[in-house]
Amino acid sequence: MKTEIIPVGTEILLGNIVDTDSSFLASELSSLGLDLYFISTVGDNHDRLFDTLKRAWERAGLIIVTGGLGPTQDDITREAIGMLVDEELRVDEALWQELRNLFSRYPGRIPEGNTKQAAVIPSAQVIHNSMGTAPGWWVEKDGHIIIALPGPPEEMKLMWQESVRPRLKQKTGEAIILSRTIKTFQVAEARVDELVAPISGLSNPTLATYINPDGVYLRITAKAQRREEAESLVRRTEEQVRAMLASHIWGVDDETLESVVGDLLRSRELRLATMESCTAGLLCTTVAGGRESCIFYRGGLLACSHEAKTALGVGVQPGEPHGEENLKVAKAMAETARQSLNADIGLGVGGRLSCDTNSGDVFTAIVWDEFDMTHTHRVRGNHLRMKQRATYAALFDLRRVLLERRINAPDH
Amino acid sequence: MKTEIIPVGTEILLGNIVDTDSSFLASELSSLGLDLYFISTVGDNHDRLFDTLKRAWERAGLIIVTGGLGPTQDDITREAIGMLVDEELRVDEALWQELRNLFSRYPGRIPEGNTKQAAVIPSAQVIHNSMGTAPGWWVEKDGHIIIALPGPPEEMKLMWQESVRPRLKQKTGEAIILSRTIKTFQVAEARVDELVAPISGLSNPTLATYINPDGVYLRITAKAQRREEAESLVRRTEEQVRAMLASHIWGVDDETLESVVGDLLRSRELRLATMESCTAGLLCTTVAGGRESCIFYRGGLLACSHEAKTALGVGVQPGEPHGEENLKVAKAMAETARQSLNADIGLGVGGRLSCDTNSGDVFTAIVWDEFDMTHTHRVRGNHLRMKQRATYAALFDLRRVLLERRINAPDH
Repeated sequence: MKTEIIPVGTEILLGNIVDTDSSFLASELSSLGLDLYFISTVGDNHDRLFDTLKRAWERAGLIIVTGGLGPTQDDITREAIGMLVDEELRVDEALWQELRNLFSRYPGRIPEGNTKQAAVIPSAQVIHNSMGTAPGWWVEKDGHIIIALPGPPEEMKLMWQESVRPRLKQKTGEAIILSRTIKTFQVAEARVDELVAPISGLSNPTLATYINPDGVYLRITAKAQRREEAESLVRRTEEQVRAMLASHIWGVDDETLESVVGDLLRSRELRLATMESCTAGLLCTTVAGGRESCIFYRGGLLACSHEAKTALGVGVQPGEPHGEENLKVAKAMAETARQSLNADIGLGVGGRLSCDTNSGDVFTAIVWDEFDMTHTHRVRGNHLRMKQRATYAALFDLRRVLLERRINAPDH
Repeated sequence: MKTEIIPVGTEILLGNIVDTDSSFLASELSSLGLDLYFISTVGDNHDRLFDTLKRAWERAGLIIVTGGLGPTQDDITREAIGMLVDEELRVDEALWQELRNLFSRYPGRIPEGNTKQAAVIPSAQVIHNSMGTAPGWWVEKDGHIIIALPGPPEEMKLMWQESVRPRLKQKTGEAIILSRTIKTFQVAEARVDELVAPISGLSNPTLATYINPDGVYLRITAKAQRREEAESLVRRTEEQVRAMLASHIWGVDDETLESVVGDLLRSRELRLATMESCTAGLLCTTVAGGRESCIFYRGGLLACSHEAKTALGVGVQPGEPHGEENLKVAKAMAETARQSLNADIGLGVGGRLSCDTNSGDVFTAIVWDEFDMTHTHRVRGNHLRMKQRATYAALFDLRRVLLERRINAPDH
């Protein structure tokens, strides 16, 4: 069924709040196999809300309105829906009693405005709000469904889970939408597009690519009547994608590069230490932020200058290093981290990031007992983006090394 | 001028990403005195995007489209705008050359798809993208302005700040909206509301409070025909607010705690070093992220375990420290940072953050030649929030110490 979400609230149009309700509802709708074509955000203005509702009525079978159900003057969702389906609002005595009971728990009398919240139209069924005073509406008329939900995310989500989702699931067959996100690094978005071109025309599953600091994501989305169907559709396409993108792929779905690297280290009982300069702490923060990092991560050193590197025991020539020397410095940093934090593996990241050219050269080094290796990376973007790219480049290198070489953990 | 934002992207309608671009743009537009009436989100579908653009053309003078400027097949914003203003797309050779130069820095040839990004229509002026390959568009036709920006938040924001905002500001002289944000720490939002209650009823300027990781913000917003009026409205209210919140205030507008602390250190030629545990790298990342941090920040140490602390030279008793001992450990960490990084001031942050109770105890220490001091802080929230609060608590302590005591820099 074609669906449209209508978030109502001037605070959204003023940028005072981020509308997270819509993204929650969007992913819920897609998991129900409902096609969301538009999210039409409008302010607390009666005419504009009415126009938006009318348009939605013309192009969608299911309309979900969030917000505008409060007790104040500028809460106009009830009135606008009444006008849309040409029905009059009347105070529902039972509902009004319910609200009064709710308020009787608190000191002070019930604010007059709240009678508004007890007003309903004949074809509206009230949806109980177990968290707040704003009841929701489920309206069915002329083959359309209009659902009005409160704006506050917690109230909206609870009402959705308790009452709306189950009921919608019955209405809307069992069409299932499954998606799988394949995560890559060190390959351009357009290049990913080229590589998967042979299957990019598919209508089911569909393919979509996104750029992220930790690389290009490729999302496979399949739609089917039964979960098994959807799963096998996704599986088959994922196999093709994996054959096409091969070594660029580092993870799927919720996996992060730090969690992938962390799992490899943990499973081999290896302990990591880092030393960084140009990433300005982002490397240690990212690694330490990974799942159960305390098990495999000893800690990290940040040196913001050559002086600081020397103070921490990194043997560097005075002055800016050049060419090969950069790799030597990165290696010395990795070794210093490893030794001073008594770890098995040292990861060093140095380099220069220019905010004038928005580009930089990053040098990574990985060091442990039997072996060490260094890499050079080119990064682009604003300062933050370059630091992110450098951090993920280092983790991507470490991941590959851990996969390619059997590093044995010494007996701890 | 009536404005409409059109976020383009199926990933938004599938709930895979939260559209933060719109809330950013919304608050920017309101600060420019532009009236945002609709945010119309649509997927990567040519017909639906075209319909949405046509409707926006009918009801808005300024249309801002975000997303759909990438190099892939489902990036259709350029085509749709061309169709809307009835102009043809042609590859701009200069732009194409620019893109080729961009790619020449990387191994491998430029992907064919990227020619798309060099295509423009006659009335489109290209907006340079200093972070990515997707150029923006500034289109003026028949009294309408259409601005197309890339979807990735960092790219969009940078392009907005660098090129779009200044240019829009010229176009839209009319009413001036000025706002001033007063930033506080270690005072609850409800308490801020109480303190400013005497003036919170104002309609111009208006007052609004927001909770942030680095404290509660209080925003004063004034609207006037002339800048001078708006400025004096804001100034008068700010004076009242300052009298009410006094010592809780640490900064205004774009100031960050790290930049405020950094300016104090720089002006006194003091060099800082940090050591942290429970903040997991957030302290050094935050300090290093501050303006010109390289001048005053030597670097930082992160120890993820007692073992690691010992390895780095912090003398700690085996086992979890208790009571007073926690402060001793924090002080030893500050001292270790100061010595091993050869700095004037050492800042140490340790403690325990419980994700079960969502609360934790944080111990901060500040050490330099003549003096040292320690503090205990209670933090609450999810893990990230607690780490942020601990980081800012440490910086807030350091700021107060720097203001209260005359720390003299040794001759460097």
